Amino acid sequence: MLPTPSPQNPPAVLDPELAAALKRDDAGLVAAVVQQFDTNQVLMLGWMDDEALHRTLTSGRVTFWSRSRQEYWRKGDTSGHVQWVKSVALDCDGDALLIRVDQVGAACHTGTRTCFDGRELPAVVGAA
Amino acid sequence: MLPTPSPQNPPAVLDPELAAALKRDDAGLVAAVVQQFDTNQVLMLGWMDDEALHRTLTSGRVTFWSRSRQEYWRKGDTSGHVQWVKSVALDCDGDALLIRVDQVGAACHTGTRTCFDGRELPAVVGAA
Repeated sequence: MLPTPSPQNPPAVLDPELAAALKRDDAGLVAAVVQQFDTNQVLMLGWMDDEALHRTLTSGRVTFWSRSRQEYWRKGDTSGHVQWVKSVALDCDGDALLIRVDQVGAACHTGTRTCFDGRELPAVVGAA
Repeated sequence: MLPTPSPQNPPAVLDPELAAALKRDDAGLVAAVVQQFDTNQVLMLGWMDDEALHRTLTSGRVTFWSRSRQEYWRKGDTSGHVQWVKSVALDCDGDALLIRVDQVGAACHTGTRTCFDGRELPAVVGAA
């Protein structure tokens, strides 16, 4: 019997060259920045193991690994707030993905369009 | 003598309410998405512990914790490719920051404007 896939025990589904390029954290995850493709708005950040990335690359829908629930989570299955994949890129050192999507409705579970809306911190503004 | 600050041993510098809102990974870090403020282009993703966030919020310049070098890294000190802080937001569940900046030159150490340029993965495009 095959072992159950998990971030610590990913199935061999990704292209081996891509799998070798991923720089995973201790939990087997890379960060996934999700961006609205036509406005460039940053919607949210999620986490992906090899299996979540495989599903995202092959299905047209974004799937994350939920660190809090410890399970796969295909965005929109419960809320209807689907993320349709437009493109996926891996950064220079392999620990971050940029997923460009068409977001249906609110990206945030709190109901705001993005997970950063209205959550600004006091910061000193820099200038040259 | 005070202990040397590190991700595992942050100094008590952040506002306690903010420090309590951070959901750090096992290494004491949160993800920091860096975005060009006027084009919304996603430039790179870095990592911050409490001290790096404190420096970023108070100095007008972006400082990361380098996971590979295990040291603080103020963007641009070596390359000249400074990131001037425009705004900082923390997401709904406290594990990701959105840092809007004015980026001088290339954000990527490879010389490309962003760390995602020219690094697209083959992906199935989704549609409603």
